[in-house]
Amino acid sequence: MITKQQFKENSEKTLQAFEKAGIALTEKERNEIEVADFNLSDLNRVGLQLLVYVNTERVCAKEMYLLPNQTCPQHRHIITAGKQGKEETFRCRKGLCYLYVEGEGKKEDARAKIPPTDVDVFHEIVLYPGQEYTIKPYTWHWFQAGENGAIISEFSTHSTDETDEFLDKRILRAPEVR
Amino acid sequence: MITKQQFKENSEKTLQAFEKAGIALTEKERNEIEVADFNLSDLNRVGLQLLVYVNTERVCAKEMYLLPNQTCPQHRHIITAGKQGKEETFRCRKGLCYLYVEGEGKKEDARAKIPPTDVDVFHEIVLYPGQEYTIKPYTWHWFQAGENGAIISEFSTHSTDETDEFLDKRILRAPEVR
Repeated sequence: MITKQQFKENSEKTLQAFEKAGIALTEKERNEIEVADFNLSDLNRVGLQLLVYVNTERVCAKEMYLLPNQTCPQHRHIITAGKQGKEETFRCRKGLCYLYVEGEGKKEDARAKIPPTDVDVFHEIVLYPGQEYTIKPYTWHWFQAGENGAIISEFSTHSTDETDEFLDKRILRAPEVR
Repeated sequence: MITKQQFKENSEKTLQAFEKAGIALTEKERNEIEVADFNLSDLNRVGLQLLVYVNTERVCAKEMYLLPNQTCPQHRHIITAGKQGKEETFRCRKGLCYLYVEGEGKKEDARAKIPPTDVDVFHEIVLYPGQEYTIKPYTWHWFQAGENGAIISEFSTHSTDETDEFLDKRILRAPEVR
């Protein structure tokens, strides 16, 4: 659960980070920042702040902000409403993003801090500003910001966060509490 | 046709505009800026500079730069390889973009400068930084930057510029000359 105060704080931090990065938002968008704690009430370690720019039947684009060392927990995008899973490209804009996907890689070699949620994929991709990576549907992945936080643009097919499958069964994506 | 000198000049202007806007690029991307004159050899009035971030079978994202008052001429995205036409969202990042699509609107009311290429749609949308507009497949459209140029992000389905249909039959999209 997120308190109103937590929502306000993280929303403001996100707006400040976007502004510092020169990302222009409309007044309406400034009130549409989402703060997700994935039902874990450990927002500064496990959470995600985001703004959905557009989400049509075919295309979605978002701007995401992670606090320093904050983790978006391990999940994958599954078949939804008969359509194949979401494909997404992460493009790092500011800061540093540690991204982990299925493939070779060991937990003990991960440069990110191991989060307080279940993780079992450790193929590491480190994204610096200007670098990007495309995650194919059904691929387990999790990601964490470096010590200065991170802004990450996401370009994807239609987004249906509510059907994401999380490895850690304590997690709920829906209760964003705004 | 674009001369090597013109390509170099516009490519450098684009890189400067992106840098000023805080848009981080990799070294590889800095060498991948495209400059299109649409075969009209009138680049400062009719042309487009762009960088394709990603273009998979399902999703495409680009950063576009228009010089002051430069126009991307009227075109539409048609069925390609059996797939429905491209859907695209333009998001203005910097400057000002006059966008014209099918619908109500008269040539004499257009705030953009009428370009030296055929145009016959005048439903006007003015995009300031942070504003965006989604263009559905098969919709005729053209756009022009305001007097300070414009940076526009495009989020779309798979991009197949080479099959775009242009109203002005003198136009060829392909010869980018790099």
